[in-house]
This record gives sequence, C-alpha cells and structure tokens, in this order.
Amino acid sequence: MAKPLKETLYLLLEDPEGRDPRARAIRAFLLALILLNIAALILETVREFSIANEFWFNAFEWLSVGVFTVEYAARVWVGGPGRASGLAAKVRHALSPLMLVDLLAILPFYLPLLLPANLVFLRALRLMRLMRVLKLGRYSEAIQIFCKVVMRKKEQLVVACIAVLILLIISSSLMYYFENDAQPDAFSSIPQSMWWAIVTMTTVGYGDVYPITGMGRLLASVIALLGIAMFAVPAGILSAGFVEHDESAQTASAVCPHCGKPLGPGHTG
Amino acid sequence: MAKPLKETLYLLLEDPEGRDPRARAIRAFLLALILLNIAALILETVREFSIANEFWFNAFEWLSVGVFTVEYAARVWVGGPGRASGLAAKVRHALSPLMLVDLLAILPFYLPLLLPANLVFLRALRLMRLMRVLKLGRYSEAIQIFCKVVMRKKEQLVVACIAVLILLIISSSLMYYFENDAQPDAFSSIPQSMWWAIVTMTTVGYGDVYPITGMGRLLASVIALLGIAMFAVPAGILSAGFVEHDESAQTASAVCPHCGKPLGPGHTG
Amino acid sequence: MAKPLKETLYLLLEDPEGRDPRARAIRAFLLALILLNIAALILETVREFSIANEFWFNAFEWLSVGVFTVEYAARVWVGGPGRASGLAAKVRHALSPLMLVDLLAILPFYLPLLLPANLVFLRALRLMRLMRVLKLGRYSEAIQIFCKVVMRKKEQLVVACIAVLILLIISSSLMYYFENDAQPDAFSSIPQSMWWAIVTMTTVGYGDVYPITGMGRLLASVIALLGIAMFAVPAGILSAGFVEHDESAQTASAVCPHCGKPLGPGHTG
Amino acid sequence: MAKPLKETLYLLLEDPEGRDPRARAIRAFLLALILLNIAALILETVREFSIANEFWFNAFEWLSVGVFTVEYAARVWVGGPGRASGLAAKVRHALSPLMLVDLLAILPFYLPLLLPANLVFLRALRLMRLMRVLKLGRYSEAIQIFCKVVMRKKEQLVVACIAVLILLIISSSLMYYFENDAQPDAFSSIPQSMWWAIVTMTTVGYGDVYPITGMGRLLASVIALLGIAMFAVPAGILSAGFVEHDESAQTASAVCPHCGKPLGPGHTG
Repeated sequence: MAKPLKETLYLLLEDPEGRDPRARAIRAFLLALILLNIAALILETVREFSIANEFWFNAFEWLSVGVFTVEYAARVWVGGPGRASGLAAKVRHALSPLMLVDLLAILPFYLPLLLPANLVFLRALRLMRLMRVLKLGRYSEAIQIFCKVVMRKKEQLVVACIAVLILLIISSSLMYYFENDAQPDAFSSIPQSMWWAIVTMTTVGYGDVYPITGMGRLLASVIALLGIAMFAVPAGILSAGFVEHDESAQTASAVCPHCGKPLGPGHTG
Repeated sequence: MAKPLKETLYLLLEDPEGRDPRARAIRAFLLALILLNIAALILETVREFSIANEFWFNAFEWLSVGVFTVEYAARVWVGGPGRASGLAAKVRHALSPLMLVDLLAILPFYLPLLLPANLVFLRALRLMRLMRVLKLGRYSEAIQIFCKVVMRKKEQLVVACIAVLILLIISSSLMYYFENDAQPDAFSSIPQSMWWAIVTMTTVGYGDVYPITGMGRLLASVIALLGIAMFAVPAGILSAGFVEHDESAQTASAVCPHCGKPLGPGHTG
Repeated sequence: MAKPLKETLYLLLEDPEGRDPRARAIRAFLLALILLNIAALILETVREFSIANEFWFNAFEWLSVGVFTVEYAARVWVGGPGRASGLAAKVRHALSPLMLVDLLAILPFYLPLLLPANLVFLRALRLMRLMRVLKLGRYSEAIQIFCKVVMRKKEQLVVACIAVLILLIISSSLMYYFENDAQPDAFSSIPQSMWWAIVTMTTVGYGDVYPITGMGRLLASVIALLGIAMFAVPAGILSAGFVEHDESAQTASAVCPHCGKPLGPGHTG
Repeated sequence: MAKPLKETLYLLLEDPEGRDPRARAIRAFLLALILLNIAALILETVREFSIANEFWFNAFEWLSVGVFTVEYAARVWVGGPGRASGLAAKVRHALSPLMLVDLLAILPFYLPLLLPANLVFLRALRLMRLMRVLKLGRYSEAIQIFCKVVMRKKEQLVVACIAVLILLIISSSLMYYFENDAQPDAFSSIPQSMWWAIVTMTTVGYGDVYPITGMGRLLASVIALLGIAMFAVPAGILSAGFVEHDESAQTASAVCPHCGKPLGPGHTG
C-alpha cells in the first residue's frame, strides 16, 4: 500500500516530465507560498504594520512552517532522483544543497522549542528565515541559469577576483600611508582605508571618506582609473557569460535554411 | 466622394512607401509639433518663465490639442494598415498601442471639461501630457530599434532582473539585521534598507545612507562586489543586443558553409 | 627658386612617406611644443605658480605663438595633399578642420591687438587657447582611431543617445511631479530635476539632490534600474567598437598556417 | 659536492616540471608565508591590535625576513632558467623583475642597519614592505593571466587612455572657466578641477565638489554623458581581453575551413 503512495508522491513533488496538472498545481502553490513568505519577511520589519497585524503574521508563519515541514518530510521520505532505498542514499539525498535549504528554512521555527533561547539567538534564527528566499532555487529558472553561467566562467571570475583583491590591498595600503596624517580618523588603519578603496573602486562613492591631501588625490586618481577598470572586469565576464549562454542555446540547433544541414555551434561569434 | 478623401488621408498619414512629399511634410510638421510640446512641457515648470509667457503657453496648448485632435480623428476614420471596414476592425485599430497613446495625449485637455475637477486630479492630468513624449514612438527609429533589441533579449533580461531582485532582497535583509541597531532611522525596516541596497548596487551612492558598523561595512563590501557585477549584467545584455542588431544587419549576406546559399539575417541569435 | 622651397617645405610638414629624418624632427618638435603649451595652460591657473613665473609664461606664449604662426603660414602657403595651385583650392584647404584648428589656436593672441578688448572678451579668448589641445589631432593616432570608431558606430550611438534623451525627459518629469512638494528647491522645475536625473543615471550620485519621499524613492529605484542600463549602452557600443577595430585590423591578413589561404574577416567572432 | 646541491636546490625552488612533492611543499610554505606577511602588514596598522601583540609582530617579521633572505640567497646562487655560470648571467638573473621584487621585499629590514635612519625614511621603508604583495606574482596564475591580457590589449588600452587624458584636460579646463567665479575654492585651478573631472567621469561622485551654476551643470551633464562612455572603454577592453583569453584556450581546436587542419591557439586576435 505504501509503495504506490510513495511513487505518486514522488511524481507530484519532482514531476520529472512536467506534464501532470496536479504536480503543476502543487509547484504553483509552493512557489506562491514562498513568495508570500518573502513578502511577510520584508513587511514584518515595518514596525507599525507588523504590530497592527501581529496575529496574521503569526498565523501565516505557523501555516507556512506547517506546509514546509510536510513538504520536507515528504521529500525525505520519497528520496532523490535515483531513489535507491538504502539508508546511505537517504542520507546523501538529505544532505544535498536543495534539501539542506529546505531544512534550514523551517529550523528557525523549531529550534527555540528545543534549546534554551536568548534574544541574540532568536534574532539570528529570524535571519535564518532568509533561507526561504533560496527555496526559490528549486523553482526559478533564472537562478539556475545564473548558477550555470557562474560555473562556466568560474576560472575567469576567480582570476579577476584575485586581481581585484591584490589591487585592493595595494591601493588601500598606499592610501593609508598618504592620508593617515591628514585624516587620522577616516584612514586610521589599512582595514579602515579598505572601506575607502572598495567604495571608490566600485564607483559607489558615498562621500563619507575621500582623500584631501594633494598626494592622496593624485594617488586616488591613478588608483581610481586603474582600479575601476579592474573592478568592472567581473561584471563584463558575467555579461559575456549570459550572452554566450543564450547564443549556445540558440545556435546548437540552427540549420541552414536551404540544405537543412546543422550549422554547428562554431559558425557564429 | 468620401472614399477617395479617406484614401488620400490614409496615404498622407501612414505613407506606406515614404515617397509622397506632402506626407513627408505632414510627418515633419507633426514631429516638430511633438518636440515643441515636449519643450513647452519642460519650460512650463520654470515658474518665472511660465508666468511671464502664460498666454503663449496656453495658446500653444490649444493649438497643439487642436492639431492632435484632428490627427487622432483622421487616424480613427481612415483606420489601420489592413483598413477592414467593419466596426470590430475600427475598434481593434483604436485600441492599438500607438492609437491609445494618441488618445491619452489629448485626453488631459478634454477631461476637466467633462468631469468635476479638483487640484489633485488636475495635477495627474498634467502628468498625463507626458504621453506626448511617447507619440515620438511613431516617428523615431531609435525607439523602434530599442524596442526590438529589448524584445530580442527579453528572456535574458528577465533572468537577469529576477537574479537582481533576489540579490536585492537578500542583501537588504542582511543589512537591516546588521545596521538596524546602529542606525535605527536609516535602516528602520527592510523596505527602507532596500533604498540603501539599490543606491549602492547601482553604484549611484548618494551618500544619504551608508553602513557605519564594522560588520555592516564588511557585509556592504562583499555585497557591493557581488551585487555590482550582477546589476551590470542587464546593461551588458542591452549593449550586446545593440551590437548584435547592427551585426545582423551587416551579416545579412553570410552564406552557408555547406551549400553556399545566403543564410539571411535571422539565422543567428 | 620658390617652387623647390615650397616642395621641400611640403615634404617637411606633411611627410607623406614618413621617412625623412628632418620631417620627423619637425613633427617631434611641434608635438613637444603642443604638449608644453597644454602644460602651461594648466599650470597658469595655479595662481601662486603663475604669478611667480609670469615672465616665463609670457615668454613661452610669445615663442609658441611665433612658431605656430610660422607653421600656419607655411601650411597655408604649401597647400593641401593635392596641392592644386588655384585660389579656390587654397581656400578649401584653409577651411579644412585641421587648418581651422591651427588658426583658432593662434587667434587668441592676435585678436586683442586688432579689436578693442574688454575683460569678458579676453577671458573667452583665453579659453580658446584650449584649441591647442586639438592640434594634437594631427599627431595622435589615438584620436584618429577614436574618431574612426565613433564614425563606424555612429548610427548605433545616435539611436542610443536618443533613447537616453527620451528616458531623461520622462524620468525627470515624473520626479518633478513626485518630489516638487517635498523639496521645492532641489526639484523646482523639470530642467532642475534633469540635473538629478543625469547625476543619478550616469551613477555619479554626488548626493546634492536625491528623493526623500516614499513614492519618489520607489520611482527613483525603478528609474535607476532601467535608466542605468540604458545609459551604459553607449559605453558598451564604444567598447565593442574599439575591440572590433583591433580585430578587423588583425584578422584582415590572417591566413591558415597549413594551406596559406586567407581565412577571411568572417571566420572568427 | 656543491654541484649536486645546487642542482637539487634549483629543482626544489623552480621545479620546472611541477611534480616533485618536496618542491610543492616549499612553494606552499613560501606562498603561505607571503600571505601571512600581507595579513601582518594590514593588521599592524590597527593600533590597539599591534600594540598588544608587538612582540609577535616583531618575531614574525624576523622569521619572515630570515626565510626570505635564505630564499633570495639560494635563488641568486642557483641562478636562472638557463643557469649559465658566468658572472654576467648571474647579474642579469639578479636584475630580472621577479628577483628585484624579492630583493626589495627584504631590503626594508636591512637598510636601517646600514644607513643612519630618520623617521620619514623609516616610514618609506615600511611602505616598501608592500613589495611582498608582488612576490605573489611568482605563485599566482591570476596575476600572470592578468598581465598577459594587459599585454595583448596594450595598444588599445594606450589609445583609450590617451583619449581619456585628452578628454580630462578639455573638460577640467572648461569647468574651471565656468565654475571658478562661483566656487573659487573647489575650482581654484585646472589641476584642482581635474579632481572634479576624475571623480565625475569615473562615476565615483563623492559629492565633495560639484558644479552649482546653471552653465556649469549643463556643461557637466554633457561632459558626464560623453566622458563616462569614454572612461568605460578601458574596462570594456579589459573585459573583452579576459573573455578572449578564455576563448583562445578553448578554440585551440578550431580547424581551417579549407584544409581541415587545426589552426592553433594563436590564429586570432
């Protein structure tokens, strides 16, 4: 009796072929619940609003945790794609990233019931509810494409990030030596002047810290021109990755309109 | 007698072949009138200038609305490209985006005559005159190319925007938890700290809100480096779209490497 | 007797083959003089420095104008590339952009001698000495490549700029209507709020003007996200233009290393 | 007896084949020591921390300099890749960039022992310890790839930088003439207004200097729109260089469309 139910549940939750209307309804319901949870998480911090609607926020939290707990239990029970029945396979499935996110998304509710809680701990748990945003990963194609692009450009991104880091260390050290005397508060140490370097080279430029000495400004100008170009490289790599991802999807199946032969992935830029 | 007039009007207003000198003159006149309307809209808000020239602004508004009304009536009468004569076709044509823009561009003048008006309502109507900027869509190739590029890159832009949105939620939530104690005004709620997140990750950095705690700055640095790269992706996609649009116009003469026949402009992403 | 001198001068000044060592020396001397003139122009505005060295600044100005005048006279005399000897050809050559720049670079010195001068006029003339920067155009390959790239991407740049302009008008009008009540000084008119729009959408974000109302911030967020992507497009087009310029120069002559046949400009991205 | 030791040392330090486990251990140890040195350099400027741990900072400095000195001596002794034994070859090797960096990284420790030292001199030496960051160049592939990309795009970067410089001079001169009267402090000279120009065109926009006159703002808007596009070009070129670097590694297997033989990694720009 249990076996067919497990089978049905697997199809409803994972829906490998994406055609079952009930599976689609469940997906839509869970997706809507996650989005509503994110909205609640955001609105709860607007004090006037959250105090006036405390009851509803609590009720919605209980409902959500209930549904997510049932979902998690069901997913653990039916197991992963291969559905090997051994305990090792079960554990391996339970420790996969998506399952961990599902667990961490409901834990903040149960932990205070199990452990003696203080305020700091409760606050950290509240923050952990942010994990529910990551539950979107199961449903959002955008996140999956984004992860794929990052994976594909991993090496370049790592190279660019290391270059950015080295530039950050050199420029904040130099600025510390040049501006420390004139502005002992703003450039009190190298870690402090790293804040300046990041705010400058990302071109955010809040205006809370900036060089005032002549040498400092000259150095800042040179650093800004060099550094900004470097800091823009990761963005350029990501953009190129997105454009390529799209092209490779489109040109994989392109055929010549006259002879019908495949043009191959390499025939265009 | 009416039929030939309708035919003539259609040719004058739509000018499918773009060679009739009178049609060109009408296009140029309407385009100039729209540009003058935009100039008037902008200058009218410069108080000293608008008070001194109130009569001329009003006269120009009456004239413009008169011309645009005649143009709208004529366009409704002659109908759309297919010019099927049935009422349904007429209605369908009248509800097309370009026709709606034409209607909304003159409505702000007529509505106060029909409805009891108060100040807020009058102000909203004034704002609706901005629709006249969109009337440029009928004449500006730039807007049409821009829309085409956006359409072509639609999926990528949607993916990038969802990723941007998720990053926005996560980073503003984290910053709220880290900076709320130190700056209860600037980071009073997650929606408030979203303002910080947007100002930072777009690299605008007005300097009205910024982290001051050590943890907040550390987090802001990491978020800035990640987020800025992500926020730059839509711009990169749009740029690539513009470049490709140009290239696809140029590579219209590419040939298949197998049979040597032209591939046409549409064979690549 | 005059003819050979003219011939020699033409070779020295224009040096079509770029091999004459005397022509090279003249080029180097004129280039150095222009660079020194730019340096003088900049340093002259540092009051303490210019007062202490007034004599040398004046002497250098007289010397420079002398040399540039001789150069200009010689160039007018020897004529342009074709060196047709008619008066019409002479005038046509004298009105070419490079010759006009040469004339405007020395005029600020002579005009006060010819016309009754007042202070405002003298100041404007001082500004005209900036033309000497443009004299670099004759010597700097960088400027020539830059102009070529801009020319090649002209249509795209125009399209992007018109789109940027329309976005600018719409967003500054909307912000004016939303923020005018809360900040009547900063957003006193649409032209005023255009300053905000430009500072925001270029992501400069000085922090002198920013929205403070909830609606204003919401709108500014949406505008920022859209607008920044648009404002980045011209930069993307220019960058692509530079990269293409380089590639087209390199791949024009690429051959297969095995069979020696040209690969053609289209075989790579 | 000395020869085999020299041979062994060479293999341990340079490890041309990268397989010797002892050579790898030495590399890892030296890399870790460099990273710890960088961390110490940064943390030493945090006053409370450095005073409390003065002894450990000093001990670590002595240890590091000891190891780096031994390393430097060993590298000088075993010589470079070719290992020609003449004195000229030794000197040539000792003057190679990587060896100079190694020398400059330990000099700040020894110089005060040799020369009479004052405070300014000691401070400059402290700054020279930053050279240890550059010692990473021997170990970090990221830096090597970055240098390769910069080398490959050298000409384009130079062209873009000259264009940026010319734009900088023109725009800061114009702004000086327009804003000098209204803000004699912020725009007191052209070098001063260059600070504004750099802060604006890199889009950093601290907000310490900005135009306030109508003409100044109009000019700043035009300059910002033009200049920002130009300043973004070097970043675009670098990004393209990174993407191409990766592609050229991938397209190493591309074949000639004529003879079908592999084209090799170097056949494109």
